[in-house]
Amino acid sequence: MITETVKTVETDTKVIDIINEIAKKKYNAIRKFLKGESFNEVVIFGVYLWGNYVAQKLSETSKIVYVVDIHEFLERFITYNDNIKFLHLKDFKLKFLKNEINPDLVIDLTGIGGLDPEFLSKFRPIKVVIEDPKGVFDEEIYKVDKTYNKILQLSIDCDVGILKTYRKAKVSKTSGTMTLTIDTIVDASREVNALDGVLYVIPNLRYYEEILFKEKNVTKFLEEISKPALTISCLDENIKEEAEKILKKNIDIIYSFVEEY
Amino acid sequence: MITETVKTVETDTKVIDIINEIAKKKYNAIRKFLKGESFNEVVIFGVYLWGNYVAQKLSETSKIVYVVDIHEFLERFITYNDNIKFLHLKDFKLKFLKNEINPDLVIDLTGIGGLDPEFLSKFRPIKVVIEDPKGVFDEEIYKVDKTYNKILQLSIDCDVGILKTYRKAKVSKTSGTMTLTIDTIVDASREVNALDGVLYVIPNLRYYEEILFKEKNVTKFLEEISKPALTISCLDENIKEEAEKILKKNIDIIYSFVEEY
Amino acid sequence: MITETVKTVETDTKVIDIINEIAKKKYNAIRKFLKGESFNEVVIFGVYLWGNYVAQKLSETSKIVYVVDIHEFLERFITYNDNIKFLHLKDFKLKFLKNEINPDLVIDLTGIGGLDPEFLSKFRPIKVVIEDPKGVFDEEIYKVDKTYNKILQLSIDCDVGILKTYRKAKVSKTSGTMTLTIDTIVDASREVNALDGVLYVIPNLRYYEEILFKEKNVTKFLEEISKPALTISCLDENIKEEAEKILKKNIDIIYSFVEEY
Amino acid sequence: MITETVKTVETDTKVIDIINEIAKKKYNAIRKFLKGESFNEVVIFGVYLWGNYVAQKLSETSKIVYVVDIHEFLERFITYNDNIKFLHLKDFKLKFLKNEINPDLVIDLTGIGGLDPEFLSKFRPIKVVIEDPKGVFDEEIYKVDKTYNKILQLSIDCDVGILKTYRKAKVSKTSGTMTLTIDTIVDASREVNALDGVLYVIPNLRYYEEILFKEKNVTKFLEEISKPALTISCLDENIKEEAEKILKKNIDIIYSFVEEY
Repeated sequence: MITETVKTVETDTKVIDIINEIAKKKYNAIRKFLKGESFNEVVIFGVYLWGNYVAQKLSETSKIVYVVDIHEFLERFITYNDNIKFLHLKDFKLKFLKNEINPDLVIDLTGIGGLDPEFLSKFRPIKVVIEDPKGVFDEEIYKVDKTYNKILQLSIDCDVGILKTYRKAKVSKTSGTMTLTIDTIVDASREVNALDGVLYVIPNLRYYEEILFKEKNVTKFLEEISKPALTISCLDENIKEEAEKILKKNIDIIYSFVEEY
Repeated sequence: MITETVKTVETDTKVIDIINEIAKKKYNAIRKFLKGESFNEVVIFGVYLWGNYVAQKLSETSKIVYVVDIHEFLERFITYNDNIKFLHLKDFKLKFLKNEINPDLVIDLTGIGGLDPEFLSKFRPIKVVIEDPKGVFDEEIYKVDKTYNKILQLSIDCDVGILKTYRKAKVSKTSGTMTLTIDTIVDASREVNALDGVLYVIPNLRYYEEILFKEKNVTKFLEEISKPALTISCLDENIKEEAEKILKKNIDIIYSFVEEY
Repeated sequence: MITETVKTVETDTKVIDIINEIAKKKYNAIRKFLKGESFNEVVIFGVYLWGNYVAQKLSETSKIVYVVDIHEFLERFITYNDNIKFLHLKDFKLKFLKNEINPDLVIDLTGIGGLDPEFLSKFRPIKVVIEDPKGVFDEEIYKVDKTYNKILQLSIDCDVGILKTYRKAKVSKTSGTMTLTIDTIVDASREVNALDGVLYVIPNLRYYEEILFKEKNVTKFLEEISKPALTISCLDENIKEEAEKILKKNIDIIYSFVEEY
Repeated sequence: MITETVKTVETDTKVIDIINEIAKKKYNAIRKFLKGESFNEVVIFGVYLWGNYVAQKLSETSKIVYVVDIHEFLERFITYNDNIKFLHLKDFKLKFLKNEINPDLVIDLTGIGGLDPEFLSKFRPIKVVIEDPKGVFDEEIYKVDKTYNKILQLSIDCDVGILKTYRKAKVSKTSGTMTLTIDTIVDASREVNALDGVLYVIPNLRYYEEILFKEKNVTKFLEEISKPALTISCLDENIKEEAEKILKKNIDIIYSFVEEY
């Protein structure tokens, strides 16, 4: 109950801030792998949840960046500039088979149940980045993962980089931005809960993917991820600073790198 | 992302189911302490979150049950019958001072920052139940807790019972129904996350008390607590059964009892 | 395996250091309750694991401090001075019944399965301290605990203080020094294990009470508790400093206080 | 303290039982990769902690199994039969360079800081198994790991299998048998600690590698790993059965497999 004794604190850190931090870490890992090279045609498979961020960054040094997804409405996540083009996977395939597109950089962020490995064999890029969706060992997830099959399909003379993202010494089942965001917030909520004077902590999470992929309500999705990561019921509002530190520490342990193959 | 490979499962167990289970455990602890005695006039301080449940149950054997709160709008939580009456604390105090009310059973569910201990000294009941809000040790919460001061104010010849509620070998900072509900769901979410084939788990929690005490939107509050406790992103929908078991196990470790003083 | 790459680090903090820190915290809580008063005759029931520490401290301001135990061999834990006397419980009882001893301060550190509550009714002290062995809620331990029965047996005009010791927001089943020491070291071992470059961490614990109460080998017991709290297999020996900090932090959350009754 | 109320329970499961279970899991993963083929000359690098187990098993279907280590005294871990030969690494290298040994199966269990990757380039085996020492992500351990370098050194026409071992959804920093054994016992100890009526639990662990590699005392090492995994201080001895179940569950989540390269 809210009484004069019990206060409510919301963190300045929003859910989206954590998503963005993870996007940055992942992009920086890719950037390092690309070693400053520029590309003519880039294709990024998978808009959601950070494909747009990669597109923006790569569009600065590339002639054209195609962002491809099977969900048409995800186009709304794209911040357009002259060098960026959103395509539905079907349209991309058409253009690709007609040789209208011939990317020298392929980035596959589709993860579990994503791109068909065989499809990748048709490309003749200079560099390829494949996001490995696996996190801490899970028998079932390891079974359905096709990262290795994808690598096998690629021609021997392109550079293949596997993008991996983990939380150091913590349990996350996938490297997906949504998984990492949720686990970061939930784990932080338990740590904040242990602080002196805290009654309870609410991790402000929703099933975002229902809002997005079922309701197809991008506005509501953006509204929801703009909520404070944590709401804290406590005796002293000064707890806020410590809560932000705990969130930061939990973001800092997320580590992304590209393993060259 | 939702693909054909990745499924979404929602637990049948709703947030409100857990609230209700806790309410039952707490009421049963009180009932045991009352040893089947019936009372003329009962007063329950604190509607939220389970005062109504206690009122319903006690109204079966009492002439009149007064439910008292400082939040007028909480009256909407009361399921009325002939023996139940909601009063604002101010109105109760007026009637009480005029001797119009003279309860033989006093139940104080107000917890941290709740009833003034001195106020309790004015009652001449046969039995008193005071909910001790303290959970696992927290220096600040122990400092503001007034359970012991309340006991000292009571006349020596009434039976005093202290209602205590804990999660066995788990960390919860208070015995409050909201605290226990949140901790149960968050802890269960981490356990479900460890199951084979689970990608991530969302504890479907909101900052309910803002909706209730700030927005004063009872309808939205009821809607929110009717959400499934957990939403699970996984490879196999059969995980659901195990998730329900984990929730049940986490509810089962909540233990409520009255310590006679 | 120990190779040139893998190093071994032992913490400077020994098991006994943690035992001593807990003893200090408990004694300081008692001291605060005694408010600088001095006593003629003090009796401390229970030598093990920190009775001697309390005896030393109280012997500075008391005429005589009796340390009483049912284990004769525990006398070896006593550092004698002119004001301290070790007695077997049987011998104490004899002297007490003959009125040769009439303590004005009674300290009962025997905990679970310890002193018979009824025995306490025979004392006429000014102050009594009873150590409450309960930690985080455990149904069975709460059932066998006799702290409240002990209080009820005491005459109404003595000051009763209940010594409580908890780890803040952590799970420990009892307030016993052995329990708190083990839990502190095991929990710290998991935290150290999460540090970068750590392969594994060994909490250097033994079943000390077998060595002491079954083997009755005090020398071996003292040798064992003098071992480093943690042995760490790691890549970089500089981890040591962080490991000590983690141990310190885990000691700092142990909190002892006397609740006046 | 040990009183009549408080009992002590030791698990039937010994430390060595867990080591053996892990050895079996790892060997079975290798066996599956070998697909029933038999080999003329097998070389296993690394005796400790389960090299002997692999040697025994493979000696049933191979003409000769060389077990190679840099620690001469580890020969005492070898259970000899006609097909097994222990060699110091130096002696192996001499024979190998003289072409006296030409293994068609190479198994490298040396892990972190183990075999020099370049050394592997000299072999012309049919199959190679390399144990990947990495567990849950750790920046430093990933840096020093040479599994991938080892793979690169191997000739393109041999089958390479990478042996990986994890605990499902749990944190272990390496796949080493010692790491997994310690983490299994420590994690189980916390679970047993949560059971009703348990006061505290001691994970019976020692710094075994000091006994072995520094003291070179194999007898003491074997004595130490023959201790019960857990010693439990509790109110009811029937807890034992549940403790064994918890240990079993924690062993069951260890999962070993060979990833073909």
